[in-house]
Order: sequence, then structure tokens, then C-alpha cells
Amino acid sequence: MSADDRLKELGLTLPEVPTPVATYVSFKQVGDMIYLSGQGPKRADGTYPTGKVGADVTIEQAYEHAKQTGLGLLAAMKKAAGSLDKVEIVKLLGMVNAAPDFSDHPKVINGCSDLFVAVLGDRGRHARSAVGMGSLPNRMTVEIEVIVKVHP
Amino acid sequence: MSADDRLKELGLTLPEVPTPVATYVSFKQVGDMIYLSGQGPKRADGTYPTGKVGADVTIEQAYEHAKQTGLGLLAAMKKAAGSLDKVEIVKLLGMVNAAPDFSDHPKVINGCSDLFVAVLGDRGRHARSAVGMGSLPNRMTVEIEVIVKVHP
Amino acid sequence: MSADDRLKELGLTLPEVPTPVATYVSFKQVGDMIYLSGQGPKRADGTYPTGKVGADVTIEQAYEHAKQTGLGLLAAMKKAAGSLDKVEIVKLLGMVNAAPDFSDHPKVINGCSDLFVAVLGDRGRHARSAVGMGSLPNRMTVEIEVIVKVHP
Repeated sequence: MSADDRLKELGLTLPEVPTPVATYVSFKQVGDMIYLSGQGPKRADGTYPTGKVGADVTIEQAYEHAKQTGLGLLAAMKKAAGSLDKVEIVKLLGMVNAAPDFSDHPKVINGCSDLFVAVLGDRGRHARSAVGMGSLPNRMTVEIEVIVKVHP
Repeated sequence: MSADDRLKELGLTLPEVPTPVATYVSFKQVGDMIYLSGQGPKRADGTYPTGKVGADVTIEQAYEHAKQTGLGLLAAMKKAAGSLDKVEIVKLLGMVNAAPDFSDHPKVINGCSDLFVAVLGDRGRHARSAVGMGSLPNRMTVEIEVIVKVHP
Repeated sequence: MSADDRLKELGLTLPEVPTPVATYVSFKQVGDMIYLSGQGPKRADGTYPTGKVGADVTIEQAYEHAKQTGLGLLAAMKKAAGSLDKVEIVKLLGMVNAAPDFSDHPKVINGCSDLFVAVLGDRGRHARSAVGMGSLPNRMTVEIEVIVKVHP
């Protein structure tokens, strides 16, 4: 089954690839590697869920935010590689806007990691770190950046 | 116009490449990729601007700090690649020492991104994340690390 | 002298490679590069030292935690590459769970960097950033991720 079919089966739709508002780009390819700019859980209306995970936001809510972020990253990968069936996730940096004593970052970032494996199968498995930031742009709850490999 | 000429036209001078004070190096090349160690806005006298952006430090001040950091990174790239005309910026991680409710990290890190494009043109465009740290070495306001590609 | 012999001479033992508890993996190889997932200073009993460096934890204690983390990373590299004599450290991201005004992150992460050079010699020298996080999984004191190159 293609990655697009799996997305459909999961009832998921890829968002538009966000246009960076500065002198940087959504992704950059060198050889067969694509570096994706960090993304957050952008809603269809352009706003973001905000707050500190572990204080204002629950793990379950933040898991959904990480999943939403993953959809945006898949959209950027698809645009960069032409098809999701050609991409393999290599490395993910999952950044949680968390309260200072928060300890469950992995459970939050699983929202993105689980999505990648659900859509891409074994090519969705990746090395990763899931860590807590002091703050994030727009006060959004999570930001994730990814390195992917493109197969011919 | 060469990158060195553009720097001159912009009235900018590259600083000395800082010597790491430990068992690490300023940059490491593997194949045609160079990984640069994180740098901050080091002044000529070796000190750094300090404080939390959004509390003690304004966005405008921190933009200048990110630009100063970018000059140090360009100096390291030039040393690593021999000439700035051979380098292409691939990926930037912009880390802001920010107050917990700060939300304008991209506006700060633009100080570095804008510099790279001003000096390197299209080869200066890059994927990036701009995020908020809980703290930074020397209490400095920003730290930026970069991955670049070297062209023959 | 082999890296294994140097470890023995230093009186150090590699721990088991931790099994990730989610949809990610301990390391991912693409070409001759291996991306390692972030690790912390896991004790033999599976627990971690916790607290904020600069408040609850001293630099000296955290240096030892970074060294312990480095042993876990060496274990993962060895498993990935087959032998430590084939690995070269390229890039390290050292993340310290620090108090907001902490300023000595490099002195903490040196615990890992020094270990890599002690065990791997010149191939242990790397580009790096050493920075302060707002929080870390399990409230652990440090987390470190690494990119390594494998030699034939």
C-alpha cells in the first residue's frame, strides 16, 4: 500500500507546506538527504495551540499536537521528494515547550514518531531525541525538525 | 561579486575563529559536509552580551547578536573551506536564551539568516529551527550551530 | 591500542544498549554516517540522576553524568559499527537540564567529550554545542546525541 493510501486509510490529510516568512526555506536537499525546517502544530486557520506542556497542556493533548506537526513534516517531505514512498526518516529532534519539572517528553513526541511509522512503515523508524525547551515561537507546544533520506 | 567583496560592501569584518577550550573542535568535515560547533555573539574583547531575550534584552538587540554570531560562523566556514565562495548553508539551529513566555525567536535568528543570504546569495538560504533554550553558556543571549556543504 | 583496550585501561565498562520504548531506534545508519538517539546517564538499575544543574546538582556531579552518558553512546556506536576502532565522532549536541542562570554547560559536557578522546584518540574529536534545556525526560540531568562516521 502506498503512503498516500495509508494516510487515507487513517483518515488523515496533509496540510499545505508552510511558506517561511524569512530568509530560510522549508527544506534543503544535499545529495540524497533532506533537512527539514522545524515545524509546529499549525492549525488550518494558521494559529497554533499554545502553553506549557505539564502545566497548561496535558500529555494527551500534546501527543495530538506532535501528530499534527508530523503531518506538516510529511507534507514538506512529499513536496521535497515528489512522493512519500521514496522517503526514509533518519533523525528527529522533538522539542517540547514544557514546564521545568516535566518528565514525559517521549510520550509527547511519540505522536509524531507513531504517525511516521503508521504512514511509512519500517522506513518511518528513526533515531531521535525528545527534549524540553525553555520557550518556542508563537508559544506553541511542540516543534519538530527532521532529517530524511530520499530513495530513487 | 565574491563573498569577501560583499562583506566589505556591507562594512563587515570577520572575527578570529575562536579556539575551543576543550576536547572539541570549531568545525569537523566529513566528505563535502562541514559541521560547525555552536557559537555565540563574542565581542572583540572576548566577552558576550548576556541576559534573557524578552526580559533583559530586546528583539532588536538580539537580532544584532545573532548577526554577530553569524560573522563568527562565516569566519569558521572560511577557515574550513578555504573560501566563502565554496560554501552553501544547509541547516541552522538557532538557540535563543529567552524568557519562558518569549514567542519571537524567528525574528532574533533572522539576524544570522539575513546575514548569510546578504553575503552568500542563494547559497545562503537554509533549512532552520529557531527555538528557546532554558540557559546558554556564559549566559549569552544566542547560540547558533550550522551544517554547510562545500562545493569544489 | 584498540578502543576496547583503552576502555579497560581506564577501568570503564560499556553498559547494555538501551532498548527504545517507542517507535524509534537507538541508532540509524545512512551511508557511512550513524545518527544516535539521545541518551542520558542511565544507571545499571535503570534509574537516572535527576535535578537542575547549577541548583540541585554540581558541575562536578554533572560532568560524571555526561561521562556515564558517553559510555552509553559508545555502547550504541559499537553495536552499530561492529567495533569502536571504526568510528569517528563528528558532531555532538550536549543538552544540560540546568537552572535558568547556569553558565557552565561546556564544563558539564566535557565529561562526554573527554571520554570520547580518551577512548578513541583523535577520532574522538568533534564539533559540538553544549546548551541548557528547560527540562529533560525523567528529569535527568543531561542528554546527549551524536553523529558518527564509520570507517571501513
